[in-house]
Amino acid sequence: MDRTQSPAGFVSQEILERVHVGRDYVAAKLGFRGHWYPALLSEQISEGQVRPVQLLGERLILKRIDGRVFGIRDRCLHRGVQLSRKVECFTKDTITCWYHGFTYRFDNGLLCDIVGAPQSAVIGKKRIRTYPVQEAKGLVFVFVGDESDSLPPLHEDVPPGFLDADLAVHSHSRIVNANWRIGAENGFDSTHIFIHRKSGLIRDNDLALPLGLVPKGRGSFRTVEEAGGPKGVFDLFDPDHVTPVFTGTVGGTTVLEANAAAANALPHHISIWLPGVLCVHPWPDPALTQYEWYVPVDADHHIYLQALGKRVASDAEAKQFASEFQTRWRPVALEGFNDDDVWAREATEPFYANDTGWLREQLFEADGNIIEWRKLASRHRRAIQQPEHLL
Amino acid sequence: MDRTQSPAGFVSQEILERVHVGRDYVAAKLGFRGHWYPALLSEQISEGQVRPVQLLGERLILKRIDGRVFGIRDRCLHRGVQLSRKVECFTKDTITCWYHGFTYRFDNGLLCDIVGAPQSAVIGKKRIRTYPVQEAKGLVFVFVGDESDSLPPLHEDVPPGFLDADLAVHSHSRIVNANWRIGAENGFDSTHIFIHRKSGLIRDNDLALPLGLVPKGRGSFRTVEEAGGPKGVFDLFDPDHVTPVFTGTVGGTTVLEANAAAANALPHHISIWLPGVLCVHPWPDPALTQYEWYVPVDADHHIYLQALGKRVASDAEAKQFASEFQTRWRPVALEGFNDDDVWAREATEPFYANDTGWLREQLFEADGNIIEWRKLASRHRRAIQQPEHLL
Amino acid sequence: MDRTQSPAGFVSQEILERVHVGRDYVAAKLGFRGHWYPALLSEQISEGQVRPVQLLGERLILKRIDGRVFGIRDRCLHRGVQLSRKVECFTKDTITCWYHGFTYRFDNGLLCDIVGAPQSAVIGKKRIRTYPVQEAKGLVFVFVGDESDSLPPLHEDVPPGFLDADLAVHSHSRIVNANWRIGAENGFDSTHIFIHRKSGLIRDNDLALPLGLVPKGRGSFRTVEEAGGPKGVFDLFDPDHVTPVFTGTVGGTTVLEANAAAANALPHHISIWLPGVLCVHPWPDPALTQYEWYVPVDADHHIYLQALGKRVASDAEAKQFASEFQTRWRPVALEGFNDDDVWAREATEPFYANDTGWLREQLFEADGNIIEWRKLASRHRRAIQQPEHLL
Repeated sequence: MDRTQSPAGFVSQEILERVHVGRDYVAAKLGFRGHWYPALLSEQISEGQVRPVQLLGERLILKRIDGRVFGIRDRCLHRGVQLSRKVECFTKDTITCWYHGFTYRFDNGLLCDIVGAPQSAVIGKKRIRTYPVQEAKGLVFVFVGDESDSLPPLHEDVPPGFLDADLAVHSHSRIVNANWRIGAENGFDSTHIFIHRKSGLIRDNDLALPLGLVPKGRGSFRTVEEAGGPKGVFDLFDPDHVTPVFTGTVGGTTVLEANAAAANALPHHISIWLPGVLCVHPWPDPALTQYEWYVPVDADHHIYLQALGKRVASDAEAKQFASEFQTRWRPVALEGFNDDDVWAREATEPFYANDTGWLREQLFEADGNIIEWRKLASRHRRAIQQPEHLL
Repeated sequence: MDRTQSPAGFVSQEILERVHVGRDYVAAKLGFRGHWYPALLSEQISEGQVRPVQLLGERLILKRIDGRVFGIRDRCLHRGVQLSRKVECFTKDTITCWYHGFTYRFDNGLLCDIVGAPQSAVIGKKRIRTYPVQEAKGLVFVFVGDESDSLPPLHEDVPPGFLDADLAVHSHSRIVNANWRIGAENGFDSTHIFIHRKSGLIRDNDLALPLGLVPKGRGSFRTVEEAGGPKGVFDLFDPDHVTPVFTGTVGGTTVLEANAAAANALPHHISIWLPGVLCVHPWPDPALTQYEWYVPVDADHHIYLQALGKRVASDAEAKQFASEFQTRWRPVALEGFNDDDVWAREATEPFYANDTGWLREQLFEADGNIIEWRKLASRHRRAIQQPEHLL
Repeated sequence: MDRTQSPAGFVSQEILERVHVGRDYVAAKLGFRGHWYPALLSEQISEGQVRPVQLLGERLILKRIDGRVFGIRDRCLHRGVQLSRKVECFTKDTITCWYHGFTYRFDNGLLCDIVGAPQSAVIGKKRIRTYPVQEAKGLVFVFVGDESDSLPPLHEDVPPGFLDADLAVHSHSRIVNANWRIGAENGFDSTHIFIHRKSGLIRDNDLALPLGLVPKGRGSFRTVEEAGGPKGVFDLFDPDHVTPVFTGTVGGTTVLEANAAAANALPHHISIWLPGVLCVHPWPDPALTQYEWYVPVDADHHIYLQALGKRVASDAEAKQFASEFQTRWRPVALEGFNDDDVWAREATEPFYANDTGWLREQLFEADGNIIEWRKLASRHRRAIQQPEHLL
């Protein structure tokens, strides 16, 4: 393959050789392979329902059967058509290709029948790819890796504490027109809060959100890299590590004033974890934690899956939180406030779309945590999605 | 030219080298050159009318002059603009370019005048490409080949019998968003009938259409390759050669039942012919034959030209057939029934669009006739449309 | 870089090597660098107003500050986003990036502040590109070149006389979907007037516009190449140099008659000047001159900026001309008449879009002035816009 040319969605070798920090991260335009990703909210796939999704460039089809969700590749072996274009499930645990009747089991991918050619020698001999699926906290996690991979535990691929029994979680999901890394860096970036200064959430929740948060040095973030646990980078937002800026000046003149005297100084820390999930704590309220996944769909789209977690001690508390999530946090925080981030990512995408942005960007001191994240991700990613994985 | 890169619409050498059966067919993304193709219905171009068409990636302009249709390239020699963008015919047998007045004769392509520069030395010295045209059975056939080619007789490029004097023919035409080979293989494919099982035509015409037709071996099709005649492959649909499947099972359970007891067991045979035309006999009625051309327009479009033929013994019979065609066969068969095929082709196109589908598909026993067609077409095609033909 | 592949908007070396006349002109798909281009009408940018424009593939942002227009690159140094996506000017002479608060001065491009990170070491150390701007005759001219270039005087980049004190000028501007060279050659082409034969302007203004103007030889145009002045090519439209054709024939039969007896034989000469501006004199009236710029926007768009000039001796004459421009010349000439040219350019673009048109076109005698223009432009262009200028 010509070094200067790359299949759509992949970074050329010529560019990668010029990346000196976080090269594997830059290479992972379609994401890190061998990890768990939330593809759907559990409530989006009810018993018997079939749902197509695209993850890391691969198309798959999910079905809930007797309560459990199964996933297989959404591409018939025979002629390559998408099974999901016209769903034909003659039995609950199979799907039949609408074109020539090739029928696959959801549990093991086996080509178990061909309606219309029942004596074919290929029946029982071929398999379609399957994808391990696991549900937790109301999310449907899919493992996108090789079938020969030993399956890592889910807790290694989510922020610490996310799976805790007393954490009630409610989520929201949409597609954003930007690469997943643009999403991740927008979320973890400590000076982008400038764009949120007029948000209703700040006012209504009496938040002391500064115009910028400037780290005092390399010690203001710390990495978590213990074997067997999640791998991530922490930003520490206490006065020892970070200078919050509430007054904006241009040419010596004050042009903006954020409310430093507001009641709630949030968050205390922000962290980002492989394979691409943010944790903001506490946020958007002293009793809540916000989690955000940036799940690669293809080269220029990601699923922006936002979750809010709250420690609850009783069913009544859980019920109360469920109600507040729907009436308050989803519209005001996950949509209202974070809509500015969605807009920012889509406006950033063009600069990075042809991959030269990684060479042309000019990061500054406050981006130290981003550099750390790129290095950590390059160091601990299990694998990188490559062109051959899409064939 | 870099081997891994190909002009749009052409298959790379790298892929072709990995194709072991029917390589020339796979290479013919824009069709086989040196053949006759039906571009229009005769009724679509009346006396004096000018019609632009695109065939095998080439744009041409047709005009009917004194009853006869002529074709020239739809591109002025001077600045390359399409003559058809603004038709200027100052005399009946010429067309003048709207931009600088270059005027061409339809019969021989000669640059015979330049309105506005009548003394130019190039007048009478240059020619635009002409395309031989022949009308038969209400279709306008165009020969797309080199001007130096000796012109093959039309009867070599249509199914046997199509030109018979007693065959009345009526046709219908539309553009489909898929490569012409996807069209051809959808039509000739003996198990795709699975998609037609709910068609109104089956019910209304009391057709015993099975869910699949499985050949009993290589003897269930036969090729026709006599010199001087059409070249094609026959599927034989009698009980000695093919097993019709009327009962569909999944995991041992019956899930579908086609009507094996219906009155009409159609068709008896299906055949496909160079340069890409199907013959289904009898169909959709014991007295009719269906012909279908998949005419390459560009890399991802073909003209789907459907014709029904009926042997008629009198003007009254011909008139009766003309009326039935309009009121019954066109809406119910050519549209209603075959609309499912159009949908299937457009759903199949993405897998083959970047040419890797030919390497990734997994054909099975029932596709033996498709393999035979690819081999026959590779063996008998006159030439392959290449990038230089579009310059 | 592979010789057969070029970044979008640039001509491959393989094609350029096959161009024998005017190679640098063919290479200048995105225009000639190091020249002045009119980007806007002065009236389109009022005091304090910010306007994004794209020139030669570069995006810039203009602002009028205390009467003067300044231009900087419309791309934040930090993350590459367009400043114009959400304009934030906290002081009149700066613009602040909406994303992270990077603030730039319009006069020198200095990164003078980062709102939210006021102590950053990069403040005062980095600069964004600036673009010299000069206003004349109601047009905002921008110099697109290297910052190290010594700035050429504006009068070298406009037709002779355009800056004369007694010339009143009114202008009109729009975007055309064609490369700038297609625009320039459409304007300078002496036989394209064929397309204007039915224009209302010809009739209403009693113009003796022929169907074609055929040069009598190489002496019918002359180049202007004095050092320190504008560089251009003149077409001479007097009877000694050019044969006007008023009668159109096809096959010996008269098919068209232009009005040779009309009162006004216009124009007397047409000339074209670097970096791509036409002068038609007199036109569309014996007392007027038409100027037309074809300003490269990107590979397949140009700004078509039309200006009419008239020598005026008093304010009253100037006022009268201003009124006539709005009520008569703009709608009838700049729009009505020249709309045909816009249409022609957009219809010509596809043939040249992949750059092979320059090899396939077949110019004839009457295109001698076009050849001369391509050679002159190649000889005197200051530089050629290259891929690296867009990084």
